[in-house]
Amino acid sequence: MTISEALQKLETLQKQLYAYGHAMSILYIDAVTAAPPDTAAGRGETLGVLSAASYQLKTDPSVPEMLFFLRDHRSEISDLAGRQVDKLIEEYEKMSKVPMDEYVAIQQLLNTSENVWHKAKAENDFASFAPYLEKVIASRIRLAGYYAPEKDPYDYWLEEHEKGFTTEKLDVFFSQLREKIVPLIRAVGQCPPIDDSFLFHCYPVEAQRQLSDALMKILCIDRGHCSIAETEHPFTCELNKYDVRITTHYYEDNVASSMYSVIHEGGHALYELGGGDALQYTCLAGGTSMGIHESQSRFFENMIGRSRGFIDFVFPLVQELFPQQLAGVEAEDFYRAVNKAQPSLIRIEADELTYCLHIMVRYELEKRLFRGELAVKELPAAWNALMQEYLGLEVPDDTHGVLQDSHWGGGMMGYFPSYALGSAYAAQMLAVMRRSLDVDALTARGELAPIIGWLRERIHRYGSARKADEVLSLALEGEPFDPTYYTDYLVDKYSALYGL
Amino acid sequence: MTISEALQKLETLQKQLYAYGHAMSILYIDAVTAAPPDTAAGRGETLGVLSAASYQLKTDPSVPEMLFFLRDHRSEISDLAGRQVDKLIEEYEKMSKVPMDEYVAIQQLLNTSENVWHKAKAENDFASFAPYLEKVIASRIRLAGYYAPEKDPYDYWLEEHEKGFTTEKLDVFFSQLREKIVPLIRAVGQCPPIDDSFLFHCYPVEAQRQLSDALMKILCIDRGHCSIAETEHPFTCELNKYDVRITTHYYEDNVASSMYSVIHEGGHALYELGGGDALQYTCLAGGTSMGIHESQSRFFENMIGRSRGFIDFVFPLVQELFPQQLAGVEAEDFYRAVNKAQPSLIRIEADELTYCLHIMVRYELEKRLFRGELAVKELPAAWNALMQEYLGLEVPDDTHGVLQDSHWGGGMMGYFPSYALGSAYAAQMLAVMRRSLDVDALTARGELAPIIGWLRERIHRYGSARKADEVLSLALEGEPFDPTYYTDYLVDKYSALYGL
Repeated sequence: MTISEALQKLETLQKQLYAYGHAMSILYIDAVTAAPPDTAAGRGETLGVLSAASYQLKTDPSVPEMLFFLRDHRSEISDLAGRQVDKLIEEYEKMSKVPMDEYVAIQQLLNTSENVWHKAKAENDFASFAPYLEKVIASRIRLAGYYAPEKDPYDYWLEEHEKGFTTEKLDVFFSQLREKIVPLIRAVGQCPPIDDSFLFHCYPVEAQRQLSDALMKILCIDRGHCSIAETEHPFTCELNKYDVRITTHYYEDNVASSMYSVIHEGGHALYELGGGDALQYTCLAGGTSMGIHESQSRFFENMIGRSRGFIDFVFPLVQELFPQQLAGVEAEDFYRAVNKAQPSLIRIEADELTYCLHIMVRYELEKRLFRGELAVKELPAAWNALMQEYLGLEVPDDTHGVLQDSHWGGGMMGYFPSYALGSAYAAQMLAVMRRSLDVDALTARGELAPIIGWLRERIHRYGSARKADEVLSLALEGEPFDPTYYTDYLVDKYSALYGL
Repeated sequence: MTISEALQKLETLQKQLYAYGHAMSILYIDAVTAAPPDTAAGRGETLGVLSAASYQLKTDPSVPEMLFFLRDHRSEISDLAGRQVDKLIEEYEKMSKVPMDEYVAIQQLLNTSENVWHKAKAENDFASFAPYLEKVIASRIRLAGYYAPEKDPYDYWLEEHEKGFTTEKLDVFFSQLREKIVPLIRAVGQCPPIDDSFLFHCYPVEAQRQLSDALMKILCIDRGHCSIAETEHPFTCELNKYDVRITTHYYEDNVASSMYSVIHEGGHALYELGGGDALQYTCLAGGTSMGIHESQSRFFENMIGRSRGFIDFVFPLVQELFPQQLAGVEAEDFYRAVNKAQPSLIRIEADELTYCLHIMVRYELEKRLFRGELAVKELPAAWNALMQEYLGLEVPDDTHGVLQDSHWGGGMMGYFPSYALGSAYAAQMLAVMRRSLDVDALTARGELAPIIGWLRERIHRYGSARKADEVLSLALEGEPFDPTYYTDYLVDKYSALYGL
């Protein structure tokens, strides 16, 4: 094999993997945005064939041969090709550590367990889900043992989602957050509540769609490469940097829900749309980690989209679309309403201030489950106790409690902390950005291009050609990660808002 | 190899081919209904990988081995498996007759030529398309020579789309049609035109969507397995019998356009939804021929949807959705308006009476092109002359003339006659159906279930497990195909409508 043959094979393999990924993503997008409801069976057949074919591509004996050959000649190939080789070898080595039949059995377990969770949530029936969750946790622990026998299994999964963040670090991170946020929430709770009732008038969907289009324009998103579809739970899916899909859900009785979901998903989309051209159709395309991804979406949703300047800019436009609904409302009222903080049961509906407490509940429970300090059957009671402790809320049933998220049923353990990290990254990025850009003035004029350019230059263009810690360091101009930026941001914002 | 191993391999192969077909269809549906506009490149990469993988599956040496083994043991396997083997061997033998590099070159030619056609149509530039069309025709002739050297090339392609219908038969068929239809159009032309102006008032899209839902319900289509998306040119795409997609295009200034496109595509959908369960995920799933497919769509669109009884049933509903637009309009006026006949330039917008003349223009020209009696550069003039001769119309430019259809650019030669055959099949099916069902009374009550059941029993459930001629014979209860039914139907309907 010559180097050029091996490089050709590397490129072909990645393009094939991209193609199967693209096809499976489109099947998913179609399923949740367009497909008739009773069509899962035929889609399942197709996904089965495509994922088997994709698995075979990766495990063909010619693949490690090519990869190790290129690693041996790493100095003779481009840095980018070298990084591709490293990433594919890492994946290959992980995959080859797990016996094939165990790997398949785990996939099947996760499929089943996710389905069982769906039903259990709908029927408020934790007991039916419990035996599956037990198996999922056991299989995560077993897998971590194969992949990294030297590590604590929960740390392994935490680092899978955000490199560098083990329980040791996260315990500190979350306690810093808790120390500042809990008293803040308590103080806010003493204040007279903000009136946000006008957000819940009747807002016709067609006009909300026009608002989405306007928001996408403000976010400088090229609609030739990014569409908005409608679905139950909003998400972003990138097929490649030239084809990114965001989704939203319009509620006629809630204008802020879709408005902020579009800005949030728009932040994810900007990350993908800004990826380097040379990364496309390779394993290095796409965002580098969940935490960095979430930093982009939360940056635009909260730091920009819920800022006073942005509301000054955008409110006249919203009012023009909804003159009756917002008659007599001022920009200041709207600003206060979209920032209203109030403890609530459901994570994905939580406000900016209370959000991280929802994450802490999950993090605490995952830790105890992995360490064997908590049995699955005790989980609902433990959940309810922590919701009481952290948020002061009584959980009425498991559907609105421990069963609300899909993550655990799908095997996504150690994933939740990335949401909180993303918010904290975003606050620090904002602080660093302020040193070279007048963020408030730009935002108040609706001129987001320089802000997006700043992020593209330091984050977006690298795709996953740099690991999360490298990207973060670039974005923070070498400064170490410090959650104080985030807690300061929250304290400043909510103290002013509630006159504390 | 044992029989049971070979049957297992047969099933696996077909499920894999189904999966690739499903994925490629979803990519297509997404492209024309949902994808952002500038995303063709990334989709092209994926389609290239998937079609190559699908081609490799079919051409793997183990495939003919399995197929010929099963053919040798045909008496020991089920009739259905035997038919699958026959069909796959037929495809395999065709494929193996064409040198691989020539096959690939033809695919590339067709891709390019279809793109060139798109641009040429938009820019009214036949000259840019002509050299590609020359190559397409030459390649069709060469391919026919590989596949069936003993046949006339045009006959080969005609029979590819509708078995049994060579030029010899079609010449007779079309001259029978012409003989009756041309004088009828002339007579209608002498009558005072029908007033259909109320169809072109402002019909809000949202209410048109409600009309579509109502029509789907009348057609007994289970929406759990069939959705309506919106696109430029309406079409139906089946992924499997449990997942069928129809599309439509809403024009705010034309209520009949989408109404009849939904009924037309609904007819196609019923065919697919009615396929046998045992055929799913095999090569025998899906309609058996273009002509039979079109017979189902035109049956519902015209024989049912444009009948006096159906209008009596549906008009009150349409009027309820559009009370202002249809104020003072009676069911009889609506019936006359949706059946108005008038020669026009564009095939896909033609009315029921003049439609077949558009097909005849294309059939005549294809014959001459394949026989070398007409050069591609003479095609626009020949087109315009025939439009004058058959429809009495002056063609203003090639965009509204010879460039209007995508078929030729995509290599679909010998395809158009199936549209006319489908209409003629439908008229004869209606006559046979009338012997056991009171079609008019059922239609006037909106009770289409017995009519659909009749078609399902004789046509739909066979998928493509029976060839078109067998299916037609079953549907016609053994009676030979006779286009007189169709011409009689048209003469009766239009004589009554225009009081001839």
